[in-house]
Amino acid sequence: MPGGSIGEAHNFATRVRYADTDAMGIVYNAVYLVWFEVGRTEWLRALGMPYSEVEARGMSLPVVEASLRFLSGARYDDLVEIETRLREVRSRRIVFDYRICVGVRLLAEGSTTHVPVEIATGRTVRIPDWLNRALGVRAAVRAP
Amino acid sequence: MPGGSIGEAHNFATRVRYADTDAMGIVYNAVYLVWFEVGRTEWLRALGMPYSEVEARGMSLPVVEASLRFLSGARYDDLVEIETRLREVRSRRIVFDYRICVGVRLLAEGSTTHVPVEIATGRTVRIPDWLNRALGVRAAVRAP
Amino acid sequence: MPGGSIGEAHNFATRVRYADTDAMGIVYNAVYLVWFEVGRTEWLRALGMPYSEVEARGMSLPVVEASLRFLSGARYDDLVEIETRLREVRSRRIVFDYRICVGVRLLAEGSTTHVPVEIATGRTVRIPDWLNRALGVRAAVRAP
Amino acid sequence: MPGGSIGEAHNFATRVRYADTDAMGIVYNAVYLVWFEVGRTEWLRALGMPYSEVEARGMSLPVVEASLRFLSGARYDDLVEIETRLREVRSRRIVFDYRICVGVRLLAEGSTTHVPVEIATGRTVRIPDWLNRALGVRAAVRAP
Repeated sequence: MPGGSIGEAHNFATRVRYADTDAMGIVYNAVYLVWFEVGRTEWLRALGMPYSEVEARGMSLPVVEASLRFLSGARYDDLVEIETRLREVRSRRIVFDYRICVGVRLLAEGSTTHVPVEIATGRTVRIPDWLNRALGVRAAVRAP
Repeated sequence: MPGGSIGEAHNFATRVRYADTDAMGIVYNAVYLVWFEVGRTEWLRALGMPYSEVEARGMSLPVVEASLRFLSGARYDDLVEIETRLREVRSRRIVFDYRICVGVRLLAEGSTTHVPVEIATGRTVRIPDWLNRALGVRAAVRAP
Repeated sequence: MPGGSIGEAHNFATRVRYADTDAMGIVYNAVYLVWFEVGRTEWLRALGMPYSEVEARGMSLPVVEASLRFLSGARYDDLVEIETRLREVRSRRIVFDYRICVGVRLLAEGSTTHVPVEIATGRTVRIPDWLNRALGVRAAVRAP
Repeated sequence: MPGGSIGEAHNFATRVRYADTDAMGIVYNAVYLVWFEVGRTEWLRALGMPYSEVEARGMSLPVVEASLRFLSGARYDDLVEIETRLREVRSRRIVFDYRICVGVRLLAEGSTTHVPVEIATGRTVRIPDWLNRALGVRAAVRAP
């Protein structure tokens, strides 16, 4: 499915646990990075290429950059929607965007940048063809 | 101490716990936001204005933005240095910069932006004089 | 539904996140206490008395004891089943049992003991009638 | 140092982070298991056998059982004392006891049981002599 997934959102819902909250009564800021992880994990699964499969093929996609903007707090037991979108795929770099909502209320948004790393050597590599195909990336988007 | 603290770094060391690591064998990305919290907590304590005292005076400084750049991984039991620096104080906004190192190796750097919120009302307010004084901010830097 | 819920299991599934794992490649021990929380939260919700509603009625049920036995490790992306069972309700004490499985493999089992605390006063109290009714506890079981 | 360390306590202090607290305003229960980890890590380091060295020698000591009793809550920025004590060493089992205090106030106590596992094979083994010596265990205590 060439070019199909750039910009397509995937939504996944999770509950705020007591463990996620802090003494201000709302979710602690670092938890949003965990939700970003949950979001892209489910985005990849929906694509038919679970991250566990990416790893089984010898590749990891560590986070090299992250940014977050917090607008509103989530409370215990809130049903949180994690919206994940693939923003960009370069030969050595993938960027995801996220929006975290409770109902129509936007709590936070942010992005993470990943580089493809060969697990065996620990070295950054070009995104292999099988991963580009899974991500639905056209040649035009893939270059340079 | 007018103007004294803008740009002055404070260092605090902490150990990597097993709980901080993940299956890649290195510290999980969200832990760095927790270390940023530890860094600014100790920065404020070194200033003579612990964050618990800020709260006791009715003010909180929630994180409204955060950014992180990851360069190298930390492993279990590494002694991690958290370097915290106040970058900027505006009337309604405070920015901290962080560098996380193990020895001379830079693991990550980033920043957090905070707004002063009156706990009683939950509203954003101007930084009160007592906090500006504690932060060592001159009028010139404070405006607007 | 008198006596109905003692011993009845409720199951809830969750995925292992990268954040849950540690450098041994399996889920870190403290995460199981979080899963116990998720289990009893969903047990209470299934009963029609979400814990957020318990709190809204002025009551909290803090953990006063916990025990865990670990038999096998869970890995990233495993689909974990949390089985929760109410073992016992006394006038000032509630005990839950948990079993954590991946498929038929038992990873861990444990229990948590809770006391009813009036949020307004912070004092331990007898379980109020509305909560006993929600828990489906008969008078015979409730005493002493 | 035969028999020297059984029962000897080691203390280590750590601060409550905002990340450790929950919406009840006190430290979340699972954090105590992390503090138990910190306690035994520092106990081992004080003994001259850091856990990273245990692993470097091909051995791990996973937690197979844990129990906790919670008596009082810790708040943000409290200086928490973790007291760790080796209770028992058997040929295939090590038990640590912990007490968590803020000043003279006891917050929680508990214990963890560990088995020696050979990392290369993943199999439980007898505690090797070098570890017994490091733990200061006499033959009499070691058996059976």
